[in-house]
Amino acid sequence: MSSPLVGIIMGSDSDLEQMSEAAKILDSFEVSYEVRVVSAHRTPDHMIDYARTAAGKGLKIIIAGAGGSAHLPGMTASETILPVIAVPLKRKNSRGQAALLSNIAMPPGIPLATMPENGSKNAGLLAVRILALSDFELAKRYEEYVSKMREEVLNNDTKLESIGWQEYLNQ
Amino acid sequence: MSSPLVGIIMGSDSDLEQMSEAAKILDSFEVSYEVRVVSAHRTPDHMIDYARTAAGKGLKIIIAGAGGSAHLPGMTASETILPVIAVPLKRKNSRGQAALLSNIAMPPGIPLATMPENGSKNAGLLAVRILALSDFELAKRYEEYVSKMREEVLNNDTKLESIGWQEYLNQ
Amino acid sequence: MSSPLVGIIMGSDSDLEQMSEAAKILDSFEVSYEVRVVSAHRTPDHMIDYARTAAGKGLKIIIAGAGGSAHLPGMTASETILPVIAVPLKRKNSRGQAALLSNIAMPPGIPLATMPENGSKNAGLLAVRILALSDFELAKRYEEYVSKMREEVLNNDTKLESIGWQEYLNQ
Amino acid sequence: MSSPLVGIIMGSDSDLEQMSEAAKILDSFEVSYEVRVVSAHRTPDHMIDYARTAAGKGLKIIIAGAGGSAHLPGMTASETILPVIAVPLKRKNSRGQAALLSNIAMPPGIPLATMPENGSKNAGLLAVRILALSDFELAKRYEEYVSKMREEVLNNDTKLESIGWQEYLNQ
Amino acid sequence: MSSPLVGIIMGSDSDLEQMSEAAKILDSFEVSYEVRVVSAHRTPDHMIDYARTAAGKGLKIIIAGAGGSAHLPGMTASETILPVIAVPLKRKNSRGQAALLSNIAMPPGIPLATMPENGSKNAGLLAVRILALSDFELAKRYEEYVSKMREEVLNNDTKLESIGWQEYLNQ
Amino acid sequence: MSSPLVGIIMGSDSDLEQMSEAAKILDSFEVSYEVRVVSAHRTPDHMIDYARTAAGKGLKIIIAGAGGSAHLPGMTASETILPVIAVPLKRKNSRGQAALLSNIAMPPGIPLATMPENGSKNAGLLAVRILALSDFELAKRYEEYVSKMREEVLNNDTKLESIGWQEYLNQ
Amino acid sequence: MSSPLVGIIMGSDSDLEQMSEAAKILDSFEVSYEVRVVSAHRTPDHMIDYARTAAGKGLKIIIAGAGGSAHLPGMTASETILPVIAVPLKRKNSRGQAALLSNIAMPPGIPLATMPENGSKNAGLLAVRILALSDFELAKRYEEYVSKMREEVLNNDTKLESIGWQEYLNQ
Amino acid sequence: MSSPLVGIIMGSDSDLEQMSEAAKILDSFEVSYEVRVVSAHRTPDHMIDYARTAAGKGLKIIIAGAGGSAHLPGMTASETILPVIAVPLKRKNSRGQAALLSNIAMPPGIPLATMPENGSKNAGLLAVRILALSDFELAKRYEEYVSKMREEVLNNDTKLESIGWQEYLNQ
Repeated sequence: MSSPLVGIIMGSDSDLEQMSEAAKILDSFEVSYEVRVVSAHRTPDHMIDYARTAAGKGLKIIIAGAGGSAHLPGMTASETILPVIAVPLKRKNSRGQAALLSNIAMPPGIPLATMPENGSKNAGLLAVRILALSDFELAKRYEEYVSKMREEVLNNDTKLESIGWQEYLNQ
Repeated sequence: MSSPLVGIIMGSDSDLEQMSEAAKILDSFEVSYEVRVVSAHRTPDHMIDYARTAAGKGLKIIIAGAGGSAHLPGMTASETILPVIAVPLKRKNSRGQAALLSNIAMPPGIPLATMPENGSKNAGLLAVRILALSDFELAKRYEEYVSKMREEVLNNDTKLESIGWQEYLNQ
Repeated sequence: MSSPLVGIIMGSDSDLEQMSEAAKILDSFEVSYEVRVVSAHRTPDHMIDYARTAAGKGLKIIIAGAGGSAHLPGMTASETILPVIAVPLKRKNSRGQAALLSNIAMPPGIPLATMPENGSKNAGLLAVRILALSDFELAKRYEEYVSKMREEVLNNDTKLESIGWQEYLNQ
Repeated sequence: MSSPLVGIIMGSDSDLEQMSEAAKILDSFEVSYEVRVVSAHRTPDHMIDYARTAAGKGLKIIIAGAGGSAHLPGMTASETILPVIAVPLKRKNSRGQAALLSNIAMPPGIPLATMPENGSKNAGLLAVRILALSDFELAKRYEEYVSKMREEVLNNDTKLESIGWQEYLNQ
Repeated sequence: MSSPLVGIIMGSDSDLEQMSEAAKILDSFEVSYEVRVVSAHRTPDHMIDYARTAAGKGLKIIIAGAGGSAHLPGMTASETILPVIAVPLKRKNSRGQAALLSNIAMPPGIPLATMPENGSKNAGLLAVRILALSDFELAKRYEEYVSKMREEVLNNDTKLESIGWQEYLNQ
Repeated sequence: MSSPLVGIIMGSDSDLEQMSEAAKILDSFEVSYEVRVVSAHRTPDHMIDYARTAAGKGLKIIIAGAGGSAHLPGMTASETILPVIAVPLKRKNSRGQAALLSNIAMPPGIPLATMPENGSKNAGLLAVRILALSDFELAKRYEEYVSKMREEVLNNDTKLESIGWQEYLNQ
Repeated sequence: MSSPLVGIIMGSDSDLEQMSEAAKILDSFEVSYEVRVVSAHRTPDHMIDYARTAAGKGLKIIIAGAGGSAHLPGMTASETILPVIAVPLKRKNSRGQAALLSNIAMPPGIPLATMPENGSKNAGLLAVRILALSDFELAKRYEEYVSKMREEVLNNDTKLESIGWQEYLNQ
Repeated sequence: MSSPLVGIIMGSDSDLEQMSEAAKILDSFEVSYEVRVVSAHRTPDHMIDYARTAAGKGLKIIIAGAGGSAHLPGMTASETILPVIAVPLKRKNSRGQAALLSNIAMPPGIPLATMPENGSKNAGLLAVRILALSDFELAKRYEEYVSKMREEVLNNDTKLESIGWQEYLNQ
């Protein structure tokens, strides 16, 4: 894989399964990326170093997932001028809206692109939309992705109409 | 002004004052943009037409502000593959978190970059970060913006330390 | 079945089991209906086409179920003048009140009749109440439905009174 | 005015200003209605009597507005088979979501068409949509209403585009 | 058992298990009671009749449990001048705070004594406190109940102190 | 005034205006009462002493109002077996639902009769309902109170029907 | 174990498993402590006695865990001038934010150091930070704790980078 | 003033008025402190430097106030082993519970002592309680503070009892 364009970071390796949804999307669009564990609270130096050197080593976008107080995305955005996509993670026994609100309520001056809770798939897709702005092939692949998504729904609708909901549910 | 790179749209002209914060940011970074009233509920055709033709006419990013049910950003993102930045608007007598949640809870497949409530300033800044990925001059201007922001805080801190909080509050 | 009077639509076939509660109610009242998969985000054209042609093909009421951002009911109501009944769907790992608020907070000008979360049964009943306004036989059937509902409660009460709560719980 | 088709009821005359938005809409569509004060908690007999005799005296739809515990719409729907539209009222110093949730959470079996908080205007519009199902002239008037609403937005957009947002805000 | 002093009512027999906690408390204090199914929405006449005749047949207190929109306690309090204790019921897949808020937000003029969600045990205890105001023997039994409750905690504390938390957890 | 039957207590004299609504109700029913400042956090001894001696000095009911953490009602109920009515107070700049939830979530074993936020009027009315259980004259006065309340609503309804809502609003 | 420096108290022995996380932390830092069951509602005298004598018998810090109305931490802080750390406990079927808000909303004058819901581990760590202010050895142990925490994250990151996320997830 | 024991920091000088409540408390207890502007998002280097050097220059406690995403207290706690007291700030047009939840939901390993929203006064008092652990004179002053607080309430109660609530309100 060529030098990574997207950095997928998370506060703990226990977030990896959730965040791998973003990696899978990037794989399917043939976008290079790296996956890293970077904790704002437990390894602040590492986080700052990662954020500051990101642009220099060729990264274009950072996708940062975090739960609870969820400071990782916002602190990363403070240390880079790359676009940062925040994925608020909702863990088992999670604490309500903490991660979502902690990401969404960034002060004027430091922008974060906040995703749905556990929305790592959409984080990957937003990264692709941004990269597609200067990559015509990627834009074409995205159009195909949209077409396929549409077709799937239309096929379901056609099938449902023809066999009826009772049989559809029983299949 | 050259052909616009950013489209700032909103559901009603009563949202203009709030959304103009994004325009002011883009002005300060010398990024070209257009400002439009496009209602998802009252002018669905117009919205679809705007979204579908956006990429073709040179727009790179759409910033969409909406309050209440706030369908404009999500529906726009369904009709374009450009990155769409959502600004949930909180009006007087607003209905709690409706706009925020309506934007944040997009289904897997259609990504939205959600901003804070009334976060149009950060929407402008995110647009600049994205455009700066392929515009070295813009990136440099963003670095200067960050430096200036830092200096301001440091100056306040120095002043506070030297004159004390009582006098600082009285000035 | 005769030409359908009620259109039951949903954003994904994974919503079918939940939405089939509305279909069952309509079956029990002998009201004709159709069930369709129509996604606001993934098939906007299909949705618009469905909504615009609904009245012309004889539909009287649209019941629209959607989860998360839940734009389907509101966008449908923007493209038809038929009454639209919204069913906010609460999925596993659902995102709090997003679907409810996204439906309830429609702007002045575009009315939605919002049901309880997962309230597809009540959606069916409201459709029957509306159709019964111009169908005397249907009104009579609804009166019987109410009577039966009452009798059931009264029977439970009589039984509880006669056998006591301990035995009632043990049966 | 001819015999009323819509009954607009509310728990207290202090709700009248808010609920008159529904009356104004019905006036503009030339739909006959009556406005009444009917309290579920303070005049339960009166409420029951009103609900039970509503269909017999020619009413087609009941719009019920209530704040706080907001039992009026649900209790009315228990005593009639007419469609009942609930308007949760949010008073000054209001108690959060009480009225909204009290209306929205109706048990399976008793449907309520719930509107936005203070959504009496949309309540009127939903009533018109329902009545228009069997009144061709009314349907035509509703189409015109929609057209006018669209035109207004399009005019604002054209003006905004031509004079720019700075001047638009200053006018 | 002598003529009942407390009426325990609920909207559906599916609430019986939860509400039986109140019955058990009354049994343990030898307070007579009856348990009934009375639905505000499905059997409004029955509810009104029950509430209006309650005082006449010797009831002193009504404990009313209901979930969702939870109109039963408030409507009962509108039809009697006996003290009414409301138990908001939280069912599986319950709708957030609906029952709690629907009970707590009663308008000035109609008081309800609201308990915790599923707080039927405390409802029974409050009924005992009220009846004990004019029943010296009952007051004595309540004092003993409190003493026993205290002793239990003190015993646990003594044991925990002597054997240590590790062993305490392993027993 | 004879020896007080109801003790109205509050955590701070700044709560007096709000809590005086309970006093006014008791005055209007000619029920004797006392009003006291008793802070759970700042004067725990005083609170305990007040609660423990309440029954002995002839009090029948304690109405306790508190804001924020609102420990006063629950701690009072722990030190007396009299019924305790809790009034969660919502101050300016108040902290959401803290007082309401702190009162409502009492553990099984210590019952509190929780009122609406700032519901001191209903607290007074519930006290009257309880005292009326053993005071026939008081019960009669309560019946009159209810009748008057009803009449007022019916008069408003009659007036509204006769003069129309436009004139009613203009008077 | 020497005379305890930290008192870990809870309202019920059913909270012991959760609160033992604080004990484990103190064990690992070799800080002496005691664990006690002290109920604010069921044993108010015991609680007051415990709080008042705490400083005298050498305790430096009290960690108090409680669920529901959660009065224990605040009442304890009213009866001692030692720092009190509150742990809001979230039980199964718990009542939303009650315990958290009841602890966090303490009135000006009585400070509580509130932890996350079920945050007994952090309560132990805060106690250690406070004790380390006057215990150089303890401070050194805390520095080592932080270092170890950092190393763990860095090791995970190194491993993830070298083996890739797919293999990392499969191990 | 001697070398400061407490550092009061905040993200912006617009928070100074609110945070000065902590300074006033420390002044009244004759505890030395410094007040600084340190932004986590705009001056991350400055924040890290401040946190890392705090213990070395003699600070014992850091009080950190922040609104919105409120990362300052948590990031500071990651860079020091001193106890950190978090004050979530609620600004005009504030974003609900964001600051509170962002502080309260810290992950296991990094403790924060969270105060009420805008609870800077209690932050000051908690700092005093901690410092009083090793400063007998300060402990004595705190006891006096508590006594004075009690006396005030008792005086209000005596006055209220003697002049009655009507006159008390009119004074």
